[in-house]
Amino acid sequence: MSQVCESSAFPIRAWNDGRFEDRTDAIAVEEPLEISIRNRPVSVTMRTPGHDEELAAGFLLSEGLVRSRADIVSIDPCGKNEHGNTINIRTGPLVNIDYDKLARHVFTSSSCGLCGKASIEAVRVQIPHLKAAGTVTPGLICALPGKMRSEQRTFSETGGLHAAAIFDTSGNLMVMREDVGRHNAVDKAIGRAFLDGLAPLSNHILLVSGRASFEIVQKAGAAGIAILAAVSAPSSLAVELASELNQTLIGFLRPPKFNIYTGAERVTPR
Amino acid sequence: MSQVCESSAFPIRAWNDGRFEDRTDAIAVEEPLEISIRNRPVSVTMRTPGHDEELAAGFLLSEGLVRSRADIVSIDPCGKNEHGNTINIRTGPLVNIDYDKLARHVFTSSSCGLCGKASIEAVRVQIPHLKAAGTVTPGLICALPGKMRSEQRTFSETGGLHAAAIFDTSGNLMVMREDVGRHNAVDKAIGRAFLDGLAPLSNHILLVSGRASFEIVQKAGAAGIAILAAVSAPSSLAVELASELNQTLIGFLRPPKFNIYTGAERVTPR
Repeated sequence: MSQVCESSAFPIRAWNDGRFEDRTDAIAVEEPLEISIRNRPVSVTMRTPGHDEELAAGFLLSEGLVRSRADIVSIDPCGKNEHGNTINIRTGPLVNIDYDKLARHVFTSSSCGLCGKASIEAVRVQIPHLKAAGTVTPGLICALPGKMRSEQRTFSETGGLHAAAIFDTSGNLMVMREDVGRHNAVDKAIGRAFLDGLAPLSNHILLVSGRASFEIVQKAGAAGIAILAAVSAPSSLAVELASELNQTLIGFLRPPKFNIYTGAERVTPR
Repeated sequence: MSQVCESSAFPIRAWNDGRFEDRTDAIAVEEPLEISIRNRPVSVTMRTPGHDEELAAGFLLSEGLVRSRADIVSIDPCGKNEHGNTINIRTGPLVNIDYDKLARHVFTSSSCGLCGKASIEAVRVQIPHLKAAGTVTPGLICALPGKMRSEQRTFSETGGLHAAAIFDTSGNLMVMREDVGRHNAVDKAIGRAFLDGLAPLSNHILLVSGRASFEIVQKAGAAGIAILAAVSAPSSLAVELASELNQTLIGFLRPPKFNIYTGAERVTPR
């Protein structure tokens, strides 16, 4: 199983208002992971070690390569090489992996999602229109950041990790993951839910600790998530894609305030 | 020349402690940019439009493809296609672009830097050991974030952009750039300095508004920058690479405090 070592101690020199102090500090671990499908490398991402199976599963789901739990036969760590870790995914016989297309479209990194798409036309993954989920209240939305934060042990320690959490539409936290890469945190969270057989996540909410970019909206959409909330700002393309997907996009979620950019009908006072 | 449209107005529904209000809000613009070298596409990045020539130049410098200003003959926007913009770089006859290697190593996105490197061994760009720059005082370091922030118009408006700024070792701001992608902000800032003939930037300081990852350290190193400061946390691999490059790495720069992770000898009280 994957090893969990999310932070590491380093010696530092701290300046504080007029004087230096030498001490050690916890730092978020970053290491490369090479993902292979059927022993063929398809991606290298810089990630925080741990939950690598979930990261690999979430990457495949985000890229539209798998749809159901049964599409993945096994996910096997292949041991460390000189610079990092590798992991191999065995997919079912019905899953068709077009490596040339994958090389062209998603050549690498789940940590940025867009990487390797060598033409602008290739940016978009095909995502079905999202089903209309039920409605949620503003109070439920405002409670989400506190629930996520209370699970963020490594962030508290290092201040260096992005977080992503999946909740059901009653506001119950299903899974929370942290990573140095914000796309990786999302891939790990949706990968966990996918491996647990919960996908498509049409009755779930995804909360991210940072900003909502085009890629975050796309990853949530590929997982079937109809309500996406971000603690920070969305980008223009995130708003446009969310609108096109019929996804509710919430930004600047800082209780008691938040902004709804698209799909406002899913958030009603009661 | 590239068009500058860093923010755009969208209708939103804002929740504030018990009631909704419908209004418009400024949102940071995100659009794909396809970078070609000699008319051959090598990268697609999601960026904030504007300063695209600098982004392209910084990308080439970060990837170790060019070393001096004369290596770039021209940078020409090719007009909009359906989904975004394209830009083409003409390099000098002495610049050797190995497209197969580029496809394998940096296949795309300057927005994440690592993307497209299909093998873990390919992660590292070859960077010469950094020259010993002069020393700076803690007071000079503490003054940098305020100087950068005072230039950040679009962030103030949208809350959605990362910033990167280059200072000389007297603390004078040379260039500040903002982008939805933090790696793009760095590429734009070092690209501007490169186009102005300032590279290698061995007597300069790079400040970034977010975290210091492996890729940020690598980009700064490729530009010859010996002092890198970040407002937020560094990752473990960032600290390790900075140490290897003989680069001074400062994190959590929040005056009157900051932490020095490597190269502490370059920061002395006077």
